[in-house]
Amino acid sequence: MRAAIDTERLLGSLDMLAQIGAIDGGGCCRLAYSDEDATGRRWLASRMRMLDMEVRVDAVGNVIGRFAGRDDRLPAVMLGSHIDTVRTGGRYDGNLGVLAGLEVVAALRDSGLRPLRAIEVGAFANEEGARFAPDMMGSLVYIGGLSAEDALAAVDVDGVRAGDAAQASGCLGDAATPGPVPHAFLELHIEQGPILDREGFDLGVVEAVQGICWQRYRFGGVSNHAGTTPMSMRQDAGYVAMRVGALVRELPARYPGQMVATVGVLRLQPELVNVVPRRAEMTIDLRNVDREALLAARDDLDAEIRAIAAAEGVTVERESMAFFDPFDFDPGIVERVAHHCAATGRRVRRMVSGAGHDAQILGRVAKAAMVFVPSVGGLSHNVREHTAAEHLGLGAQVICDVALELAEEPA
Amino acid sequence: MRAAIDTERLLGSLDMLAQIGAIDGGGCCRLAYSDEDATGRRWLASRMRMLDMEVRVDAVGNVIGRFAGRDDRLPAVMLGSHIDTVRTGGRYDGNLGVLAGLEVVAALRDSGLRPLRAIEVGAFANEEGARFAPDMMGSLVYIGGLSAEDALAAVDVDGVRAGDAAQASGCLGDAATPGPVPHAFLELHIEQGPILDREGFDLGVVEAVQGICWQRYRFGGVSNHAGTTPMSMRQDAGYVAMRVGALVRELPARYPGQMVATVGVLRLQPELVNVVPRRAEMTIDLRNVDREALLAARDDLDAEIRAIAAAEGVTVERESMAFFDPFDFDPGIVERVAHHCAATGRRVRRMVSGAGHDAQILGRVAKAAMVFVPSVGGLSHNVREHTAAEHLGLGAQVICDVALELAEEPA
Repeated sequence: MRAAIDTERLLGSLDMLAQIGAIDGGGCCRLAYSDEDATGRRWLASRMRMLDMEVRVDAVGNVIGRFAGRDDRLPAVMLGSHIDTVRTGGRYDGNLGVLAGLEVVAALRDSGLRPLRAIEVGAFANEEGARFAPDMMGSLVYIGGLSAEDALAAVDVDGVRAGDAAQASGCLGDAATPGPVPHAFLELHIEQGPILDREGFDLGVVEAVQGICWQRYRFGGVSNHAGTTPMSMRQDAGYVAMRVGALVRELPARYPGQMVATVGVLRLQPELVNVVPRRAEMTIDLRNVDREALLAARDDLDAEIRAIAAAEGVTVERESMAFFDPFDFDPGIVERVAHHCAATGRRVRRMVSGAGHDAQILGRVAKAAMVFVPSVGGLSHNVREHTAAEHLGLGAQVICDVALELAEEPA
Repeated sequence: MRAAIDTERLLGSLDMLAQIGAIDGGGCCRLAYSDEDATGRRWLASRMRMLDMEVRVDAVGNVIGRFAGRDDRLPAVMLGSHIDTVRTGGRYDGNLGVLAGLEVVAALRDSGLRPLRAIEVGAFANEEGARFAPDMMGSLVYIGGLSAEDALAAVDVDGVRAGDAAQASGCLGDAATPGPVPHAFLELHIEQGPILDREGFDLGVVEAVQGICWQRYRFGGVSNHAGTTPMSMRQDAGYVAMRVGALVRELPARYPGQMVATVGVLRLQPELVNVVPRRAEMTIDLRNVDREALLAARDDLDAEIRAIAAAEGVTVERESMAFFDPFDFDPGIVERVAHHCAATGRRVRRMVSGAGHDAQILGRVAKAAMVFVPSVGGLSHNVREHTAAEHLGLGAQVICDVALELAEEPA
């Protein structure tokens, strides 16, 4: 069974959704549970109904459209992602996965085909977590990893409850959570990184999502006059932090698992040209698909940090900001996706995702897989996010091909 | 000729001056040309007159008291320092040099002695430069290194002209600048660093003042997602700055001249945990008594910085913030000071000054020397600045002994 994606129609859908919450520069602002988010969901639901899909909205606002199969007792093949954005979001992040799902259904209707299993398209609530924590909230509630009550109790920086915002904007429905476990879940997404674009690949087969370890270190030394304090008598908190920063960069090469390590924040006190810093605060972001390597890097680094600080007479405080385990997608479905990608004849790369996605949450209960398409310049969470039309169509076609194959699998 | 310092009287003077502009914690705030500074100068002038000194105030507010000698045609031996403070100053920085000078005169009067040369005590205006640049302004005008007009044209952060502030507070007088070149200049000062205190010395013979090189570096890279950007594709401005920071620390060991090197300011942008820094800005403070070594360190470091940045694909901008040549005190008078220090039987250390002092300015036109006494914990520009009474008296006695010896030198 095969259906042909209409790239122009997919572009048209992306363009329509991008009008809702449009901001300067070509991007979108549809923060979770905002009026813009609600408007986007209503547009989406109406579009689903136009495609003969049955729409349900659950207790945290996940919008699921169902295109019936030949045997509706079988678990559906689910496609999707999210349509909420960060404050200065682009037009592809999330939206592409949802609208490619609708395009698969539209292509099926064009072809007059009816698969064995239903095809469902899900737009999961609050994937970004830009307003209410945690991110991937809707998919987490969908699989039963978080209760709807707990999710809606989240509060934004203005003190607004997620549940109140969602209720006020009309985002909530009455479908039960957790939702029915699908037969499989497929998500098409822009890469949110530069690899495919820079290396000239057309498609990425995502094998895993990196685990994330965020830590904050605070160093305490002694402020001293930069001119009158001999090097041997210093307890320089800034020096310790900078040594650690240089060390963090060398870390990835020492461990397996395509590790990345970043110092994004470093602040010194009192921050004067001629005063040895008394305090330094820094964040360290470590990511790896290999959980053991991630933990080893974290612990080895901590030991090295404490040795550097001790040699300088500087105190160390460590705070764990976040830790997410890595996630490996089911190898069987990954190989199937890789097979269909290869069949396009285009340049395909296997890769890991450095960002979190709904597919890794659905992957806890069902076979799940992701396809990446290049984002020009690797832009992400940026109004200038752009993916070439041919890549949008290509990615959607692979999702379509895999979905229809999965949808013919018997019980 | 010998006169005995009265430590209790010196402590009393320090205590009285510390009442003017007193701030919480035991410190002082007498910013240059403020009302507090003016009050301090009036107290000082009245104290000079009580000691039978003739007082003159010049066009930038240098206050000079003169205790006549047996032959007033000979250039005077001048003692002194400054009484302006930083915003959160202590009670010894500057004040000690001026009040020890008055104590020398008081001791002379007690002994009934009259030296061949006059003894002058100078309180130079605006040494700190905390309100009006440059620092050491008054002594610079005194020796003719800066015109009074140019000095008084300086403007503070509120847009107030130094000349207007000085006029309004009554700090200016009519003595001509440049002033008469003294036979010699002696300055007693707290160390403003930890060496004497930590190493258990009682007196420091200052051989030189470090040269200072202040630079600001700005690095420009590319902001990227910390999870999705491979290490090999990064242009991390923060990493470059931190590598440079670690390198700066290693610099002093590679050059002669008791070098010190400090990174006091380092700022990253956009300063987010999960974003590779796009911009980094840092200051580098290099000091050395060896001018050639200071320049070599500056230039070698710049070459290394550019190599690190180039390897990372990061741009470099360098800005010179300040450069002061090192200053060597006249070896003859330094040896004489060392001899008198040794004669006390206390522990004496030869050393360099990491901070700037009026003596290095007077040293351009006259034989000049400095004696340091320990500052507990190396505190400086701090309300908790403290020097033990015995050290205050000891330092003043050495200044007295050297001054009286110099004051007997014939033409």
